Amino acid sequence: MISKQITDKIAQFETPFYLYDIELLNRTLETVKSEADRYNYKVHYAIKANFEAKILQEVLKYGFGVDCVSGNEVKVAIEAGFPANSIVFAGVGKSDKEITYALEQGIFAFNCESSHELEIINELAAKIGVVANVALRINPDVDPKTHKHISTGHADSKFGIAYKEIEDVAARLDSLTSVKITGLHFHIGSQILDLTVFENLCDRVNVLVKWFIDAGYNLNHVNLGGGLGINYANPEGETIPNFVEYFSIFNTKLEIPSDMDVHFELGRSIVGQCGELISKVLYNKVTGGGKNFVIIDASMTELLRPALYSAHHAIENLSGGDGSKVYTIAGTVCESSDIFERDIELPTLNRGDLISLKSAGAYGSAMASRYNLHDLPISVYSDEI
Amino acid sequence: MISKQITDKIAQFETPFYLYDIELLNRTLETVKSEADRYNYKVHYAIKANFEAKILQEVLKYGFGVDCVSGNEVKVAIEAGFPANSIVFAGVGKSDKEITYALEQGIFAFNCESSHELEIINELAAKIGVVANVALRINPDVDPKTHKHISTGHADSKFGIAYKEIEDVAARLDSLTSVKITGLHFHIGSQILDLTVFENLCDRVNVLVKWFIDAGYNLNHVNLGGGLGINYANPEGETIPNFVEYFSIFNTKLEIPSDMDVHFELGRSIVGQCGELISKVLYNKVTGGGKNFVIIDASMTELLRPALYSAHHAIENLSGGDGSKVYTIAGTVCESSDIFERDIELPTLNRGDLISLKSAGAYGSAMASRYNLHDLPISVYSDEI
Repeated sequence: MISKQITDKIAQFETPFYLYDIELLNRTLETVKSEADRYNYKVHYAIKANFEAKILQEVLKYGFGVDCVSGNEVKVAIEAGFPANSIVFAGVGKSDKEITYALEQGIFAFNCESSHELEIINELAAKIGVVANVALRINPDVDPKTHKHISTGHADSKFGIAYKEIEDVAARLDSLTSVKITGLHFHIGSQILDLTVFENLCDRVNVLVKWFIDAGYNLNHVNLGGGLGINYANPEGETIPNFVEYFSIFNTKLEIPSDMDVHFELGRSIVGQCGELISKVLYNKVTGGGKNFVIIDASMTELLRPALYSAHHAIENLSGGDGSKVYTIAGTVCESSDIFERDIELPTLNRGDLISLKSAGAYGSAMASRYNLHDLPISVYSDEI
Repeated sequence: MISKQITDKIAQFETPFYLYDIELLNRTLETVKSEADRYNYKVHYAIKANFEAKILQEVLKYGFGVDCVSGNEVKVAIEAGFPANSIVFAGVGKSDKEITYALEQGIFAFNCESSHELEIINELAAKIGVVANVALRINPDVDPKTHKHISTGHADSKFGIAYKEIEDVAARLDSLTSVKITGLHFHIGSQILDLTVFENLCDRVNVLVKWFIDAGYNLNHVNLGGGLGINYANPEGETIPNFVEYFSIFNTKLEIPSDMDVHFELGRSIVGQCGELISKVLYNKVTGGGKNFVIIDASMTELLRPALYSAHHAIENLSGGDGSKVYTIAGTVCESSDIFERDIELPTLNRGDLISLKSAGAYGSAMASRYNLHDLPISVYSDEI
């Protein structure tokens, strides 16, 4: 978010590239740490949001664990220096190979998404003679009030164990001697801006934790997932998400035994605002319908969110530009979906102008592809230029 | 499309992977060649559909050129052995570096998307002392009756030069001494199944070619793009698209001077049906709403089309399965959008069953990403196992 000040410095790099504000990332991490520490909450960084080695090194300094959704993510986290016992492994489709690898590493817990998966983990753990620590991921059927593609906690989502299946699962647990239920896991969706959603989540969590404890389970933690949104519309107005209120809600609303640890999985809210995609204006054109199109040298291969989720990223002309005009900003890929923004008023855009697509630190480079044989975008870090 | 017969052979490979039927690919290529040869039409393979080295080697045998949309695609095509003078370079966002590289190679033509781009090509060609062969891409404002994301020929698309801009562009051409207009280019969209659309295109092309010839331009070719769709709903019923009718329409409807060459850019129609994504069933689960979910070990990182375009790929249980059930088929990625099919009746699916997602030869592996740190999918070829 300091790109305007360092436009001269970044002009040396070939566009498009990701630019990360490492100072902002550290301020964000400090905020997360101090707010989480206030209640003794434990934080796992959701590595799927951004797995750049340099970003992981910054996160590592704060003593957080990692939230992984694939065997490769577990591997990369461990190789980056995160202790295996700080790693949780979630995801609906864990393969045998991934489960076995994670068991061998001794991760903190599997967030288990179904009774079928529970049986498979039990089987694979037995095979190598270990007991798997498992948090049951319960689908709390809470409306996250977010985009349908990133909402995960409603009744017909693919995620988690259904409410009405819980008793069945519990009944089967006695026979599964190679898994130990150590916690409950919840994650209702991503990019949540209406924080009352988390209050509703707490209501469900309180009931469920009580049910399991009453049923005799010795839970040592509850994992509340992530989901805290960032301000895509006005990133400068809110560079650091409201972690103060976020954690405070849980502290106020959670009613669980004080000896249970409370875990969170934060990705977008940690790395979203520190990254931006820097691109250059290639061409201006006017369509048959009279629209001003600006073609920039970035595309959906570097930043898929607009094409995939109709997501919006604030756009800034780093090279200035006098006056203003209504533009449609298009990427280079040969698809009509490769549009970053339609009919948006911006300072005049001319060939060669440097453009920033803001708030691209999360689910930006992590979703990049080589479609159209584009090179994968490089990353530039503010503290290295 | 021969996967059922070779299930035993492919069981050795770790899922998910792409399986290509090389015999079908060759039959398709033979059909394209014989039908195009009938009218002396020239075909460029749209490499963006699939850029696997082995696929390119098969295409190369038929003497086709290549349709590229990036400098890297031009480079890969030349390295694969395609003559530079058989390559067309399209795309709305050609960078200076890409244009200069293509000029140095001596490609057949740039499909030029705007007057602004025309000026830049002229400038860069002058700089290295060559004259660029250019086909003006005209936006014909023809409704392709296809998915909005892959429709490219309507008035407010980012593609091509608008009708009403043509006279302006023509007036400027005299001063652009380092570009030579050798043809006109059209491409109205992809996955077109209503072939009357191409008749409408011909009507526009006839008028425009006449206009340019009357205005004194010495055009040597017209490039009609691609767009011929494939049968995703019933791939076995139509393994090879209807190239007979496709080319015949142009032969019947085109009214242009007989000394002009007619070019086509075909991607999906050539490689779409020969590829399938092979995956394995990991888990069965029932959601809170009572839906049967099947989690397979493929995901949107290997095949993005369902998540991006709400595209449908026919699904087959290669391992058989008795009885049938209504299933939702979900991928492994931690996104609700990662669903391959909802509420589809299929033979019973059990853990370990091999599943084929059909018609995945085009825009399958080409759009793969490493999101969730998934490995890129490998390719298996029917003639190598």
